[in-house]
Amino acid sequence: MSHNINRQWRLANRPKGMVQETDFAYHEAPIPELQAGQFLVRNLYIAFAPAMRGLLRDRRGLLRDRQSQIATVQIGEVMRASCVGQVVASRHPDFHPGDFVRGTFGWQDYMATSGDGMRPTTKLAPSVPLTMPLSVLGNTGLTAYFGLLDIGRPQAGDTVVVSGAAGATGSIAGQIAKIHGCRVIGIAGGPEKCAWLAGEAGFDAAIDYKAQPVEQKLRQLCPEGINVFFDNVGGDILDAALAVIAMQARIVLCGGISRYNEETLPPGPKNYFNLVLQRGRMEGFNTLDYTPRFAEAEHALNRWITAGTLKYKEDIQEGFMNAPKTLLRLFEGKNFGKQLLKIADPPLGGTS
Amino acid sequence: MSHNINRQWRLANRPKGMVQETDFAYHEAPIPELQAGQFLVRNLYIAFAPAMRGLLRDRRGLLRDRQSQIATVQIGEVMRASCVGQVVASRHPDFHPGDFVRGTFGWQDYMATSGDGMRPTTKLAPSVPLTMPLSVLGNTGLTAYFGLLDIGRPQAGDTVVVSGAAGATGSIAGQIAKIHGCRVIGIAGGPEKCAWLAGEAGFDAAIDYKAQPVEQKLRQLCPEGINVFFDNVGGDILDAALAVIAMQARIVLCGGISRYNEETLPPGPKNYFNLVLQRGRMEGFNTLDYTPRFAEAEHALNRWITAGTLKYKEDIQEGFMNAPKTLLRLFEGKNFGKQLLKIADPPLGGTS
Repeated sequence: MSHNINRQWRLANRPKGMVQETDFAYHEAPIPELQAGQFLVRNLYIAFAPAMRGLLRDRRGLLRDRQSQIATVQIGEVMRASCVGQVVASRHPDFHPGDFVRGTFGWQDYMATSGDGMRPTTKLAPSVPLTMPLSVLGNTGLTAYFGLLDIGRPQAGDTVVVSGAAGATGSIAGQIAKIHGCRVIGIAGGPEKCAWLAGEAGFDAAIDYKAQPVEQKLRQLCPEGINVFFDNVGGDILDAALAVIAMQARIVLCGGISRYNEETLPPGPKNYFNLVLQRGRMEGFNTLDYTPRFAEAEHALNRWITAGTLKYKEDIQEGFMNAPKTLLRLFEGKNFGKQLLKIADPPLGGTS
Repeated sequence: MSHNINRQWRLANRPKGMVQETDFAYHEAPIPELQAGQFLVRNLYIAFAPAMRGLLRDRRGLLRDRQSQIATVQIGEVMRASCVGQVVASRHPDFHPGDFVRGTFGWQDYMATSGDGMRPTTKLAPSVPLTMPLSVLGNTGLTAYFGLLDIGRPQAGDTVVVSGAAGATGSIAGQIAKIHGCRVIGIAGGPEKCAWLAGEAGFDAAIDYKAQPVEQKLRQLCPEGINVFFDNVGGDILDAALAVIAMQARIVLCGGISRYNEETLPPGPKNYFNLVLQRGRMEGFNTLDYTPRFAEAEHALNRWITAGTLKYKEDIQEGFMNAPKTLLRLFEGKNFGKQLLKIADPPLGGTS
């Protein structure tokens, strides 16, 4: 590649149904000029999450736009994404060449930014591996932490079930439940993921939804019912869990990967009425609402990682041209751990 | 009728789909003999509620029986129901002939009881009209009170929407929301009910679901979104409300009359995922969990009735032989206010 161009992936059209590589268009732009107060970031790692599918949707009519804090990506815009990069030039007093930074730099090589915005650019602590602020110490870990603890409110001895359990958020949520003294069962696709859950990740059991009847297995594995269900999937798996909830169960609605690529709304959970019969609670949340408590969560996550009680997995693909393909891995169930894409080595040296 | 027999309606078979009069069998039994510690109640008023449909269902496989506190009625058993009656004979130290009592006496003229059980028999305060402990001061009023205030947590200025709003629980829930400074919109069937809601009951607006497109009307009437939805209906109406929820909305799952007579589980709310996008909460509850606070609720309800800020409606049918037909009125949308059946006048005199 030339060092004078800024490679970009821009949204070409809104996907219909399953997102396709052709929904994005490759573009070569000039490296942006710095304005006063800006700095130039060379992008190194791009993070991917299933909820990014929502950025591609035309939300008009679906939701009340002015209430939603989630602005969609417009046609022709660079695809938005959380990234880690390095400052290579600066006209900003607080950011200096060589600094490693996390921010919403998107699917491109370079970004000129003031570092402000809804999610301000932050500098990485020197000792932190470059990918961690995008995975276990990033939105992923924070989402698992606040979703499980604040919405799920697990008690020692509770039975906690996690769907999408080998995914980035699910695997952390389940391990946090273990740390809090719960019995934890993970639902994931395929024997490799299930073996990892029951092995290294320390889950008490794993259900392979591709090979096993989920509701029946849940009934066997949760004879006292499910106290907390941490859901990343929706659809039939949410329904199966609702069929087996214990009294006063908490359903943490974290995500719904089974429905992100559906063009029309799929049916809802027919067992929702068990929330009445069992006095259950089903609740959504947004990690951004917990911003004042991010330091608390990062501290706890760091402590558990250092103590060896929290393992995390990263699935690092390589090559900028693979950005659309890497997004698709999430919906094909190919990723195993946090999905990242490495697009360059640190230009100014530094640890990774 | 003879005064020597105890007329009863017993469950003849489990209804398939919509409950029918023929699902109950008329039976004449002898008036029960009193054991030591028992008293004999002459039943006067029988209360009806949509959730009674659940008593007729075979729950095996549907729910985890030993967790559910709701025991179903067995074939051949007298149909269970809350009633008000008068003690006509007693071998119990605390209950005396002439006392008016509320208890689970069922669809029959007489019951011999010790007054114990999950819902103990209670004596009525002398000044209380006989039907009130079955309607606004009964389970109905308590359910509205705890469901709205504890699960819905309305704030002054909130927009509160109630489905089944002309029903016994819904009409009280909506008025309690008005008392707490909310804007309240009721959904009900037919112009007569809607006129009562917007008139005597003081709702800010009413939507006639039989004549108007509910979701579209909700969007018009709730430009800032719904903060609290108190649901007695489920189905399409729950879905319409979920489409219009505001940030941090609370969905109080009180009932689901649209599904009680379905033989197979109908689809769930396809808009449930708005709970994630809007960080909403959907929660069931059981009034029995609030037993320690019943006195608080009864005191508040009484105060509002006395002050004239809480109106309640009773739909009193007459004649014991009409018990099955009276239950059906609930599912035909015929009742307007709390559905009661008067089966006798007080045998020993007394106010009503």
